[in-house]
Amino acid sequence: MNALEVIGRKRDGGEHPPDEIRFLLDGYLSGALPDYQLSAWLMAVCTRGMTRRETLELTRAMVASGEVLDLSGIPGVKVDKHSTGGVGDKVTLIAAPLAAACGVKVPKLSGRALAHTGGTLDKLESVPGVTVELEPDRFREQVRRVGLAVAAQSPRMVPADRALYALRDASATVPSVPLIASSVMCKKLAAGADAIVLDVKFGRGAFMPDAERARELAAEMVRIGEDAGRRTVALVTEMESPLGSHVGNALEVLEAIDVLAGGGDAELTAVAVEVAREMCALAGVAADPAAALADGSGLERLWAMLEAQGGSRERPPAAHPARLTVPAPADGWVAAIDALQCGLAVIDLGGGRLRKDDPIDHAAGLVIAAQPGARVSRGDPLVHVHAASEAVARRALPRLEAAWRLAGGPVAAEPHVRHRVDRDAIGDPAGLAGRLSGQGRGNDEY
Amino acid sequence: MNALEVIGRKRDGGEHPPDEIRFLLDGYLSGALPDYQLSAWLMAVCTRGMTRRETLELTRAMVASGEVLDLSGIPGVKVDKHSTGGVGDKVTLIAAPLAAACGVKVPKLSGRALAHTGGTLDKLESVPGVTVELEPDRFREQVRRVGLAVAAQSPRMVPADRALYALRDASATVPSVPLIASSVMCKKLAAGADAIVLDVKFGRGAFMPDAERARELAAEMVRIGEDAGRRTVALVTEMESPLGSHVGNALEVLEAIDVLAGGGDAELTAVAVEVAREMCALAGVAADPAAALADGSGLERLWAMLEAQGGSRERPPAAHPARLTVPAPADGWVAAIDALQCGLAVIDLGGGRLRKDDPIDHAAGLVIAAQPGARVSRGDPLVHVHAASEAVARRALPRLEAAWRLAGGPVAAEPHVRHRVDRDAIGDPAGLAGRLSGQGRGNDEY
Repeated sequence: MNALEVIGRKRDGGEHPPDEIRFLLDGYLSGALPDYQLSAWLMAVCTRGMTRRETLELTRAMVASGEVLDLSGIPGVKVDKHSTGGVGDKVTLIAAPLAAACGVKVPKLSGRALAHTGGTLDKLESVPGVTVELEPDRFREQVRRVGLAVAAQSPRMVPADRALYALRDASATVPSVPLIASSVMCKKLAAGADAIVLDVKFGRGAFMPDAERARELAAEMVRIGEDAGRRTVALVTEMESPLGSHVGNALEVLEAIDVLAGGGDAELTAVAVEVAREMCALAGVAADPAAALADGSGLERLWAMLEAQGGSRERPPAAHPARLTVPAPADGWVAAIDALQCGLAVIDLGGGRLRKDDPIDHAAGLVIAAQPGARVSRGDPLVHVHAASEAVARRALPRLEAAWRLAGGPVAAEPHVRHRVDRDAIGDPAGLAGRLSGQGRGNDEY
Repeated sequence: MNALEVIGRKRDGGEHPPDEIRFLLDGYLSGALPDYQLSAWLMAVCTRGMTRRETLELTRAMVASGEVLDLSGIPGVKVDKHSTGGVGDKVTLIAAPLAAACGVKVPKLSGRALAHTGGTLDKLESVPGVTVELEPDRFREQVRRVGLAVAAQSPRMVPADRALYALRDASATVPSVPLIASSVMCKKLAAGADAIVLDVKFGRGAFMPDAERARELAAEMVRIGEDAGRRTVALVTEMESPLGSHVGNALEVLEAIDVLAGGGDAELTAVAVEVAREMCALAGVAADPAAALADGSGLERLWAMLEAQGGSRERPPAAHPARLTVPAPADGWVAAIDALQCGLAVIDLGGGRLRKDDPIDHAAGLVIAAQPGARVSRGDPLVHVHAASEAVARRALPRLEAAWRLAGGPVAAEPHVRHRVDRDAIGDPAGLAGRLSGQGRGNDEY
């Protein structure tokens, strides 16, 4: 095979025959293919797109480039959950324990905070004693025994994805739906679960700017998952405003505990229960996550997981005290909260990171006092700033003062979950042999 | 300016604002922009295209990257001539002396043989004593005194074009009309002539596969030339079969001498006179190149140029003797001769080069005995092979035996010049203030 001929095929809008994408990827990882050839191919993919078959081949080639987690020894349907990232997104910390309490096995490999979005690993590490570095045997044993485990991906998994992503980031070839979808899905496939629930976020605080693009990405990921033999369902959810009231690592764990104790933000609770229901459906489990919320078994399961990973309910995470409060500048109704500005404000407080190796202050963050739809009078608190000192807290004020938009009249808040995409919605009449779940639904609009 | 943002603009199909292309090129030449970013941008250009303004900016940025030849001290309209390359294309060696004999000043910087196409510099160097390395002062003096000079481009001209071309060649980003057109035209603009006649070839022996693509390229180059203030006309000519009967360096010079002496191939003569007429028209010269052919003044001018560059009419170029002849395998009419195979056969004989630094045997080549349209009997000569030895000559036989296609009945040979493109044909109503030539014609079809 000749690299220039292969690249030229995509340049001219053609489809790669089998093995050509694997040839490019293997060549790049071995050093035979230089950066400037792969970046040219990536740009051709950005502008010409990829067929369903090509996207699957790329994803599989990335999976094959490294280790794969074998979960076949764990009885039952293992269900993974993944969010494309947002601000205040602690859904995993609620939905995964709820699903586990219902009897689903939840093996989850997660990521760290980057840019304005948070990362579940950092949130877990805000709990004293908790580790997210679990060797495969310990990880599997915990899933079998506790029902759920959340750990860091091994550096030996999907090395091709890491190499490709670094080059895309440096060559303006990030925004391509098949490239984004295959980058997410290769990690999910390598992580070994039988089924996957995706939470694809859109809006100011997310990677995808609008619902239409998010839906396109969701469909592409569902296609990859189903084509690779994993039942996959995606929810498309809004991320214009932060999800829930707490943003920041320790604060988000505390909010997740509140929700599981039955006392948290209604919209966050609704999204988490919806995600947990999808997980139960894919696992063929009949129990209702709402019951696991009501009877406290979900909260019990979160603590069991934290304890299995080194934590203790005697030592809950601690946030900094509130050092400052941003007051409403006028009477009105909260029309919108800019999630991106909130995420960046947390970075200003030291609670996030701009670069992969930046240290993080797990105790810093925000607690929102006035959510979209709320009526406020001038001087009422909009948001409390938790930080190491008042001086640090002040750094976040310019962004936070700009983040709240007030309206002169009442504002209706829309539900967060907007679309649902499953294999019926992507034109896959063949599908797999029978559903794993008896509760499958169509592509309902919420 | 941010390189990723600039590259992203072309990725998304946008138009670069002024100076962005210059920013990329300057960054690349200075080493600030890595290969993998520029190749990604080049691929985006291949798939998204460039606007007229962008193509002009790219061309100008390449001109500005190096030295420019100042010909303003030479009185009169200086006319350059350029061919996109073909097999047996010795038109420059005929048309330039004819135009010079008519009074046109012809300063021409030329290239070397590469792949199956020949190069005028190599052809000239087959003449004993001739040099093509002329310093600017000597070049200008020769144009002023003799009317024409053909020399090598200075390595200090258009360095950005060379760097870009090397990267395109290695990243599958060669086939883009604006990139090809700007690469040709930057050299023409840097060479300093007031007007340019382009011979854009298409067919098996040329870079462009068909007349439509060649016409598109011709229009793009005419646009760049006119937008840069140079009168530019392009002829689109066929290169399915070799042009004329001789292929190979010394042999082509000998054929050019034959034509200028009034005894050469009719079709080659027609093309060369047509090109010379365009040169005269752009220079506003009324004399007819056909007269300069008939009275021998064209031939006189070729010798004057060769003598000015170190040659002598006492020492004409010498070709190897014919070592072998390919006979017609059957009775019939010659339907086509594959120019690409003929060009590659000359490389087999040592008369061309695959790599830039390959040595060349100027005395090797082919003399075609049966042109398209000719009737042949079995055993009649199709082509004579001139080589250093019979053993070397044999190397070319497989290609040559495959190159002739015979038909069972008479075949009509089409004229070589197919289209003419000038500023009227590219939708440029403004154009320059008045024509330099009183003989301007429209976009006639031949």
